[in-house]
Amino acid sequence: MDIQPTPVQLIANIIQAKIVGNASLLVTGINEIHCVREGDIVFVDHPKYYQKALQSKASVVIINQETECPDTKALLIHDQPFTAFNQLIRHFQPIRYSLTTISPSAQIGKHTIIFPNVYIGNNVIIGDHTIIYPNTVIYDNCVIGNHVKIHANCTIGADAFYYKKHPDSFEQLETCGNVCIEDYVHIGANCTIDKGVTSSTIIGAHTKLDNHVHVGHDTKIGKRCLIAAHTGIAGATTIGDYVTIWGQVGISSGIHIGNNVTILAQSGVGENISDGQTYFGSPAGPAKEKMREVFAVKQLVKLIHKLY
Amino acid sequence: MDIQPTPVQLIANIIQAKIVGNASLLVTGINEIHCVREGDIVFVDHPKYYQKALQSKASVVIINQETECPDTKALLIHDQPFTAFNQLIRHFQPIRYSLTTISPSAQIGKHTIIFPNVYIGNNVIIGDHTIIYPNTVIYDNCVIGNHVKIHANCTIGADAFYYKKHPDSFEQLETCGNVCIEDYVHIGANCTIDKGVTSSTIIGAHTKLDNHVHVGHDTKIGKRCLIAAHTGIAGATTIGDYVTIWGQVGISSGIHIGNNVTILAQSGVGENISDGQTYFGSPAGPAKEKMREVFAVKQLVKLIHKLY
Amino acid sequence: MDIQPTPVQLIANIIQAKIVGNASLLVTGINEIHCVREGDIVFVDHPKYYQKALQSKASVVIINQETECPDTKALLIHDQPFTAFNQLIRHFQPIRYSLTTISPSAQIGKHTIIFPNVYIGNNVIIGDHTIIYPNTVIYDNCVIGNHVKIHANCTIGADAFYYKKHPDSFEQLETCGNVCIEDYVHIGANCTIDKGVTSSTIIGAHTKLDNHVHVGHDTKIGKRCLIAAHTGIAGATTIGDYVTIWGQVGISSGIHIGNNVTILAQSGVGENISDGQTYFGSPAGPAKEKMREVFAVKQLVKLIHKLY
Repeated sequence: MDIQPTPVQLIANIIQAKIVGNASLLVTGINEIHCVREGDIVFVDHPKYYQKALQSKASVVIINQETECPDTKALLIHDQPFTAFNQLIRHFQPIRYSLTTISPSAQIGKHTIIFPNVYIGNNVIIGDHTIIYPNTVIYDNCVIGNHVKIHANCTIGADAFYYKKHPDSFEQLETCGNVCIEDYVHIGANCTIDKGVTSSTIIGAHTKLDNHVHVGHDTKIGKRCLIAAHTGIAGATTIGDYVTIWGQVGISSGIHIGNNVTILAQSGVGENISDGQTYFGSPAGPAKEKMREVFAVKQLVKLIHKLY
Repeated sequence: MDIQPTPVQLIANIIQAKIVGNASLLVTGINEIHCVREGDIVFVDHPKYYQKALQSKASVVIINQETECPDTKALLIHDQPFTAFNQLIRHFQPIRYSLTTISPSAQIGKHTIIFPNVYIGNNVIIGDHTIIYPNTVIYDNCVIGNHVKIHANCTIGADAFYYKKHPDSFEQLETCGNVCIEDYVHIGANCTIDKGVTSSTIIGAHTKLDNHVHVGHDTKIGKRCLIAAHTGIAGATTIGDYVTIWGQVGISSGIHIGNNVTILAQSGVGENISDGQTYFGSPAGPAKEKMREVFAVKQLVKLIHKLY
Repeated sequence: MDIQPTPVQLIANIIQAKIVGNASLLVTGINEIHCVREGDIVFVDHPKYYQKALQSKASVVIINQETECPDTKALLIHDQPFTAFNQLIRHFQPIRYSLTTISPSAQIGKHTIIFPNVYIGNNVIIGDHTIIYPNTVIYDNCVIGNHVKIHANCTIGADAFYYKKHPDSFEQLETCGNVCIEDYVHIGANCTIDKGVTSSTIIGAHTKLDNHVHVGHDTKIGKRCLIAAHTGIAGATTIGDYVTIWGQVGISSGIHIGNNVTILAQSGVGENISDGQTYFGSPAGPAKEKMREVFAVKQLVKLIHKLY
């Protein structure tokens, strides 16, 4: 998320951290490593990812070990970077629960129909000619386009499923992102689309989701995709345009699915898929190969039957 | 759906089509190809399905190519049969959104309990001794029997997931059907049952659904079935009586499952199943064969272990 | 559930049963076979389970055949033990539907936030510093701890999916149990957790559930578990502490998962898993073995390709 330009010294005071490097920087945003820009503050708490953070576009890195600082950056040394990051998000975007069914700060476009029992949080923006069916819930800061349909009992913008493991508990990452649903998207009944951690979960224009679909935090789905019922897509994954996903498919976090891909029903996708491929199976692979495997196992049964 | 008897010439005027064949026919219904009766109007837009439509019971066929017309029928020639069909549905059943939580046109039987935050649309009929738990949503025109239980957060009667692909967008088929839930049915929490396109999605008497079950448009489920959690059944499928379906099963569209069938958990059914069979696997087959395959693969691992 | 101490003779009168054995006993609870204690009444209706019931801690057994009675027990002879058991549950815990959105008998702690359109049933107890997001439904008698988050559109405490098959119908077991959600638990959006039949379904402290998770009746989930989206856990299963379950996993009823277990995505678990194991596949087995099977099938395809 963007913040008002803030001296890095002030940030250091908030989280009680020591500054190393360029102490005169101005911070203009708070973001997770996978969507950082210049001016942003980011955190890293595992040596495995130190270099990725230090070489990212981020201007300020909260880190749990003093290390060499690139010329243009500042480091904030803190024992618990994850906790410090949460503290900053709360500081710059304090939670304000709206306990009215439609927040006074929500903006709703022309010719848009909001059915009864819908909840619309703070700062939500909804375009024109859109229909929100009964009992759907839209959390704070989400943006819904024009000519969108969201069927009943959907949850748009709940928290990311993102926790840091401590010995006796899990610490949840505070989320300040949102969900953006572009024009002409249809969302089936009882779907859930989680908000981005610091940026947006996006459903591209003209994409259609069937019922019970789950889309994790920060996932970006392209335009003109069809996604059938009970499919679950984990966080921080990107999906191209014109992708067809059949029912009960599972897709792991952090992977990339190209354009014009087809994923057959009940597949479990754990790797990137390039443009135009058709995938099947759990674990999924190119459909032709997987169909050969199905055939081969049938042959094997016959062979064993002969032998025994 | 049924309509008042309407001269085919009037239909032709509404959608701006040319009539070929018997121009004096009266149209009495609008239906999809899989549920047409005499007197109905149907559409077809792909040469592959022309003969099926022309030989169906439909009296009038909207078609995108002039072709020989059977004696008893009329053809309506139109560039975009799908769009023309949508236009007719909207003409004969214009959408009227009810923005009250319980529509004044809904009929609710005796000794029936409607919990708070339930939404009941226009012309819904609910029988006697039925319980609708909180926050469930019932769309227009659905029919619910006697002694039915529908648990919380269900969505009954949302749109069919049925789209025609255009180069840059998807056109949704307008739906004028409904959902019929027969007597003594129980529906678990957070289920979704989509309405039929032009006829009914049916859940037969005494059938029990667990939580998170999805039933697609125009699917007919028989009597006394048990369907466990997270099962998804696509559109236009028929399922017999006394069928047991375990958890997380997926069933494709347009297939037929017989009576007394058992489908084991996580199966993916893509073909018809005859009476009395037990199926398993993804893709599913007779359970005995699939168990032999599971065994064979274990033997194969041992064999490969010896060879390498 | 516990009941006021009640002479067994009075119980016999309520259900019109004949007493065999110790007729002077006091009944202090009504429970299912898997959670009976001394003083309880239990039922059994199949000879296969007679010994289990007779040797259980239950003091009184409703049974459909006269048999030898252990010294310290009483038998209640009844043609339909299941129906008689239901009759007792309704006698001692008659249903009282609350048709207000928040029942006057619910207790809600300090600093707890209840969003709009939430339904809270009779006798529900909610702790301090807890957040219940919009449109979630909590059925009667559930107990929610401190520092809990339950996201939107969840259903907590719906009926167990538990039916007795009769030739032409299913008889539902009346449920008088509840759901207990311990401190610091997070429940994602659109989850369902069914109530116990006579005792509690439990989600242990610090456990976090993603969206669309289903937990069946009487299942006990330990502390500090992570359970990803679309996972379904059937009834009367126990899961240890520090268990990680990835997306779209299915777990059968009545089994035991140890501590520190990991279950990979889309697995179908039908057997007990001991501490520390990693499981995969459908049907699931130790992940290393299943990965060898995946590899072996790929080798087999190559071999068949050479042969043909």
